[in-house]
Amino acid sequence: MTTPAAPQLDAVLAEIDRGLEASLERLKALLRIKSISTDPAYAEECRRAAEWLAQDLAAEGFQASVRPTPGHPVVVAHDTGAPGAHVLFYGHYDVQPVDPIDLWNTDPFEPQLVTLSDGSRQLVCRGASDDKGQLMTFIEACRAWRAVTGRLPVGVSILLEGEEESGGKNLPPFIAANAEELKADIALVCDTDMWDRQTPSITTMLRGLVGEEVTITCADKDLHSGMFGNAARNPNQVLADIVASLRDADGRVTIDGFYDDVAELPDTVKAQWKGLGFDEKAFLAGAGLSIPAGEKDRSVLEQLWSRPTCEINGMWGGYTGEGFKTVIPAKASAKISFRLVSGMQPDRIRKAFRDHVRARLPADCSVEFKEHGGSPALTVPADGPLLNKALAALSGEWPKPAVITGSGGSIPVGGDFKRLLGLDTLFIGFAHNDDRIHSPNEKYDLTSFHKGIRSWARVLAAFAG
Amino acid sequence: MTTPAAPQLDAVLAEIDRGLEASLERLKALLRIKSISTDPAYAEECRRAAEWLAQDLAAEGFQASVRPTPGHPVVVAHDTGAPGAHVLFYGHYDVQPVDPIDLWNTDPFEPQLVTLSDGSRQLVCRGASDDKGQLMTFIEACRAWRAVTGRLPVGVSILLEGEEESGGKNLPPFIAANAEELKADIALVCDTDMWDRQTPSITTMLRGLVGEEVTITCADKDLHSGMFGNAARNPNQVLADIVASLRDADGRVTIDGFYDDVAELPDTVKAQWKGLGFDEKAFLAGAGLSIPAGEKDRSVLEQLWSRPTCEINGMWGGYTGEGFKTVIPAKASAKISFRLVSGMQPDRIRKAFRDHVRARLPADCSVEFKEHGGSPALTVPADGPLLNKALAALSGEWPKPAVITGSGGSIPVGGDFKRLLGLDTLFIGFAHNDDRIHSPNEKYDLTSFHKGIRSWARVLAAFAG
Repeated sequence: MTTPAAPQLDAVLAEIDRGLEASLERLKALLRIKSISTDPAYAEECRRAAEWLAQDLAAEGFQASVRPTPGHPVVVAHDTGAPGAHVLFYGHYDVQPVDPIDLWNTDPFEPQLVTLSDGSRQLVCRGASDDKGQLMTFIEACRAWRAVTGRLPVGVSILLEGEEESGGKNLPPFIAANAEELKADIALVCDTDMWDRQTPSITTMLRGLVGEEVTITCADKDLHSGMFGNAARNPNQVLADIVASLRDADGRVTIDGFYDDVAELPDTVKAQWKGLGFDEKAFLAGAGLSIPAGEKDRSVLEQLWSRPTCEINGMWGGYTGEGFKTVIPAKASAKISFRLVSGMQPDRIRKAFRDHVRARLPADCSVEFKEHGGSPALTVPADGPLLNKALAALSGEWPKPAVITGSGGSIPVGGDFKRLLGLDTLFIGFAHNDDRIHSPNEKYDLTSFHKGIRSWARVLAAFAG
Repeated sequence: MTTPAAPQLDAVLAEIDRGLEASLERLKALLRIKSISTDPAYAEECRRAAEWLAQDLAAEGFQASVRPTPGHPVVVAHDTGAPGAHVLFYGHYDVQPVDPIDLWNTDPFEPQLVTLSDGSRQLVCRGASDDKGQLMTFIEACRAWRAVTGRLPVGVSILLEGEEESGGKNLPPFIAANAEELKADIALVCDTDMWDRQTPSITTMLRGLVGEEVTITCADKDLHSGMFGNAARNPNQVLADIVASLRDADGRVTIDGFYDDVAELPDTVKAQWKGLGFDEKAFLAGAGLSIPAGEKDRSVLEQLWSRPTCEINGMWGGYTGEGFKTVIPAKASAKISFRLVSGMQPDRIRKAFRDHVRARLPADCSVEFKEHGGSPALTVPADGPLLNKALAALSGEWPKPAVITGSGGSIPVGGDFKRLLGLDTLFIGFAHNDDRIHSPNEKYDLTSFHKGIRSWARVLAAFAG
């Protein structure tokens, strides 16, 4: 494919190759900032990450600023000098907590380059893949364009948030309040996986998310299990009974109306996904498992991309330290998340879940719920000129042609862009599903980083055409 | 009742009243030692408590020593000069952990005297009731006898251990290895409750205990619930399913053979317990509850004293910190205890529980078990000359006559004394069931302490008769 920017693209790609070590050093500097958004103890580190990014973008030539929100700040940068297409790029600088800390082989916030037995080089650090490594691929591509041509080939706005990992509710109001400033022709999000190590992908189907925390209280204080056992209600038992009731023997979620708005997958999509040749056994083996869980009559890919989930992300009550304590605790809690597919309404699922819990609560116990975010699923139209240009650009960089895929994850901002700015989003990412995001020893393939930068350079060139 | 020691008893009781403040100061000094046995971080504090007691006993006139075990040390003291009866007194100097620490009104290891609205004075501190306050009642009674008469009215040996709260296995081998030294006519244990604030009791029926820790592993690392949810087995869900399966809808424990060796309560005992006028509503209300849990066709008292239990003392898996983390953890764990009644064999119950768990484990998950102690229930013959003398002595001290009761708790040492020394045990204690043992703000009534000391002075006098 030839575009007006094409003659310069080769020089830009060469500049990316030449400057890779410097690009990597900048990423490492960002990774060393402990921007864990969910834990208030790290608020100052989140601010430092935002300031680092704004400074880096300004040094590169963007008009960049750190913008306050009621939570962690947002970084906004613009360079809209180029005529024609205008893209809004989104990434997040916040990262997941690092526990269980003892399972990390090295300091979670000191980036380490590790060479695997297959010869690939991996950058190991919290946030390497999710999302600092990914967002820097775009920033580095812009830097290379400027270094070679003195300008960007298209108009670019950048929006980097700090609450993606903490179900923060501050981004949608920020987008709404700054809608005029953030308008563009299309949004680009770099927070997704490649299909495999040879095949880039654009994700057009993302699940939504409802996060809930439930705390069950029985007695008004901790009790001695010898003095009160049997006769006093044990909230650990009550919680376990309720959690156990959430799925039936066939793995279906039993919450009333849970699947009411879930459409069966169209036969055409089913056929396309079948054509991807997804290896269920290999996928599960990558996690040390061999038998699929969940709904027993659904394929793994269908369950990951187009079926809603109900997962217990955390559960705790009573004595959990060393040794033993014969206590009946007063309280027990769980953090439970639901991934939603197209058509499901977050508020309706949240209410149905709460009704399910209340209906199973013994009469003299009480329950408290805490909301941890909610967003609907997102489906992007699977054609359109910019999507097709991006597919072609990605296909030019990688060994195999780019494919269109679904994703089990949730990236609420895509829905926000549609609703608040009227923008469709292209989800283009270079991570891999063995990157251990949210887990100890998170990593990002240096090939993802290098060819990711080159990919964005190509996409910007394609959009200029 | 008149005994040879009776003429001196009044003087001893007067000495106890006169010296109460000094007795209280000694108890406070012992309470300040943070002898949490279950947490290895406090091993040195356990040693300090043992040394403090040995010094105090030696200062009083006992031949006292701190004796090593593979775990926390044991204190042994003797004064066997008196002719006639010889008692072996048992107590434990170790205490429970203090979490949840934020529910304590004051420092858990700085004793506070608090006057309640009913005018009673309470000593608030971890270990105040369980068992430092109780064991000091006996030591102070001996001190008063010596102060007045220069000797003890009966032979006394004292055995104080430091692993009662940690399911420690080191005491039975210690008793076996020192059986000759520890022989006596009867064992006395001060680690139980009064029937009510007016009525002392001797407990003749104590449940046994089996402690188990179970850890379920599914994936070989933590997973992202968006990428793996539904398809990857969630150990929180597996654990909840298993815990939920432990009791049926009627509150009966479903473990195979669990009730096989549980005898129905004899009608005579049932009638006696009915005569105690136990107020179920008031008992539950004391814990902020109103509806009995457990087996639905059994009275609360029956469930507490003569039915086995299955309680989840702790349960944890996944992310339990602030905020939210969409993780599917690799592991989930629970600490589960079973109180056993007469006839149940700890090893058999442990095996039946493990079989129950393994039978419900999905094929590609694994389970690990950790043993936290095991002891059978104990039934003491409900008559005998020393029991009757003790009942009469206690009745002389308190407003209402002493009664014989069961107890829901477990004091394995009674079984050890029977098995290893051939000794019956009289469980005589002055605690109350609202003492918040094992809970924040544990307390001991100053009346329990004061009249407890006087009670032991009377019991020793009675045994000399």
